[in-house]
Amino acid sequence: MAAAAKLLGGVARGPPALALAAVAGRRALGSVPPGVAPFREGRRAALAAAAGALGGLGLGLWRWQQAEMAASKEDEEEKEEEELRKRFMAPPVSGLRELRRRRRELRSRMELLIMETQAEVCRALAALDPGAAFSVDTWERKEGGGGISCVLQDGEVFEKAGVNVSVVFGLLSEEAARQMRSRGKSLKAKDGKLPFCAMGVSSVIHPKNPHVPTMHFNYRYFEIEEADGNKQWWFGGGTDLTPTYLNEEDAVHFHKTLKEACDKHDLKLYPKYKKWCDDYFYIKHRGERRGIGGIFFDDVDSPSKEEVFQFVKSCAKAVVPCYIPIVKRHCHDSFTPEEKLWQQIRRGRYVEFNLVYDRGTKFGLLTPGSRIESILMSLPLTARWEYMHTPPESSKEAEILEVLRNPKDWVH
Amino acid sequence: MAAAAKLLGGVARGPPALALAAVAGRRALGSVPPGVAPFREGRRAALAAAAGALGGLGLGLWRWQQAEMAASKEDEEEKEEEELRKRFMAPPVSGLRELRRRRRELRSRMELLIMETQAEVCRALAALDPGAAFSVDTWERKEGGGGISCVLQDGEVFEKAGVNVSVVFGLLSEEAARQMRSRGKSLKAKDGKLPFCAMGVSSVIHPKNPHVPTMHFNYRYFEIEEADGNKQWWFGGGTDLTPTYLNEEDAVHFHKTLKEACDKHDLKLYPKYKKWCDDYFYIKHRGERRGIGGIFFDDVDSPSKEEVFQFVKSCAKAVVPCYIPIVKRHCHDSFTPEEKLWQQIRRGRYVEFNLVYDRGTKFGLLTPGSRIESILMSLPLTARWEYMHTPPESSKEAEILEVLRNPKDWVH
Repeated sequence: MAAAAKLLGGVARGPPALALAAVAGRRALGSVPPGVAPFREGRRAALAAAAGALGGLGLGLWRWQQAEMAASKEDEEEKEEEELRKRFMAPPVSGLRELRRRRRELRSRMELLIMETQAEVCRALAALDPGAAFSVDTWERKEGGGGISCVLQDGEVFEKAGVNVSVVFGLLSEEAARQMRSRGKSLKAKDGKLPFCAMGVSSVIHPKNPHVPTMHFNYRYFEIEEADGNKQWWFGGGTDLTPTYLNEEDAVHFHKTLKEACDKHDLKLYPKYKKWCDDYFYIKHRGERRGIGGIFFDDVDSPSKEEVFQFVKSCAKAVVPCYIPIVKRHCHDSFTPEEKLWQQIRRGRYVEFNLVYDRGTKFGLLTPGSRIESILMSLPLTARWEYMHTPPESSKEAEILEVLRNPKDWVH
Repeated sequence: MAAAAKLLGGVARGPPALALAAVAGRRALGSVPPGVAPFREGRRAALAAAAGALGGLGLGLWRWQQAEMAASKEDEEEKEEEELRKRFMAPPVSGLRELRRRRRELRSRMELLIMETQAEVCRALAALDPGAAFSVDTWERKEGGGGISCVLQDGEVFEKAGVNVSVVFGLLSEEAARQMRSRGKSLKAKDGKLPFCAMGVSSVIHPKNPHVPTMHFNYRYFEIEEADGNKQWWFGGGTDLTPTYLNEEDAVHFHKTLKEACDKHDLKLYPKYKKWCDDYFYIKHRGERRGIGGIFFDDVDSPSKEEVFQFVKSCAKAVVPCYIPIVKRHCHDSFTPEEKLWQQIRRGRYVEFNLVYDRGTKFGLLTPGSRIESILMSLPLTARWEYMHTPPESSKEAEILEVLRNPKDWVH
């Protein structure tokens, strides 16, 4: 922010358009308070400052015309940005101008995709819970980057729904590098330093009605620059469902939608990532999975960056169609206090998985500078632990437990 | 159990009294269902079996008299056992006869102490919540040993109160040995094997009323036999308080009672273990302690086994006087829904500490054969996670947060 403040303070050098880009670029890397349009305001402030500077320095007509032309191009870009601003929940962390400047780079396209996904999912959820509203917080990470957390809490339909975007960069911590190497990555550091960029959208939706399942998804992209300038990159992600009670129709719809998204790219993907999901969301000390699965993958870096991105895009686009119809179908179902109680006990298991096993949560909690509220947004509003709770045989509660202990194939 | 069954089946050899001791000893090592008096029944069955064997084998008068004399001594012992049975919540894991046989050994005295502590605390709690009752489960660990879990759930005064005793033995797992070595212990194994015995009483009491604090205590003893026959041993433990709202009078009473217990042994103990407690119960990702502390210590193996045992005994005896008066004082306090909500949010932090940081919980969850329900008994019945919950400045909620962030000295 120091450089931007300097420019705004009237010490601008060179044509105003350049100064503007610099202002926008810098601000975009900083934090953006909710509901503020930083580029527009930044631009106006900078124009005013530049005009002041021009007067003071007595520059000639040519430079003034250049400034006017640049401003006209700016107006077009401003309109485009206005459009995007309406679509997104908040201005992107990297700034729209910066994203446009490097529009062909995959990390820019990925950032736009996670922003779009966040907005799509928030809108779809908000439409089902008209009385509630998403709070939108933008936050900055001191070490580089930031994020946008959208949370709807204690609504009519949703107990807690969080959709979080984060785009962080800087130098990889030693602990993080160690963890990555232990997963088989060879990372050649220069003076022990590894510049990285990580971004993703992640979300957990806990509905109120015990007949509406909890849903989680996360799509992420990672880039590391090695000592020789070589860039390592990979994608990870997944979408999975955690019902309180089993509804076979919902389970089939959910898995089928994900399978269709995968099948467009490679028929091998769904079976592989479905199994990975069942293996990953395993609460070892309970001998149960967290839910009825979906898809999960990590460290995917082949066949090509473009192809993996297209696959991730298909998965991200499948979030709304795989889940929203299930919410619509059941959000007005009647339920008993006993059903609510069982939901609360299952919520307790959700907490156990997330705090004891989930790699992302554990990594986040142990990483300096991470935003705890965004990480723990995944926890339910309420949860319950009863000593020695065992559902009666042949009950609906025992039915879902059976599936959590022995995952099923839902689409064959 | 195989050897005991063999004896009861009529293949007893040698004087009946010896056979009896063997029967009792063996049964004591196995599991004991709640409400059953295993030694008495075991003894009668064995006497009958022995009488049968005597008839069949035609033994002389001398041996019969010996058996009668032994039986008379048995009657006395039986009375003594009956007394202990009334005092304890269930028969001890090692069996009363076995404990009497090796009565001078520290592990026997420690087992009796943890049994007594369990019973004392359960009785004191039950007296305050007359409508509720402790469920008593005895359980067996396949690999050796077992435990007694006493849990009172959803009472008038207590939301969940668990007091657990466990006495386990066998061979130390490699993971456990690794962890201990990483704490600075040099353990000389024979063929990689380290016989161990671990026992302890541990308890978490979550009351309903937000003006009654949660209390936790744990006292434990560990023995490891090294390859050269040398026995390493140490004690650990502590008692700590987690209030929803700060009450200075309660905090002072609690710490003062613990300090008095420590001061009887060494004036250096309370300050040292008070600080250790503040350091241990730190929720790093929140920058807060779980509660207002108390005492905590681990790996204590000096000045002598006897002296440390006497210190641990004083601490265990202080549990009821440091906590019960606080419960009595506040269990009928009126409270608002907002106060209950804040309690639930603090319960969420309790869950975070226990699942993310607590060494005992983590170790238990990752140890094969451990009893999950007894380990997770420490979790509250209900908990809550609100996104971005921040109490207003100068509120009662902010007051306790301040103390959790900056621990206070309560007794000077």
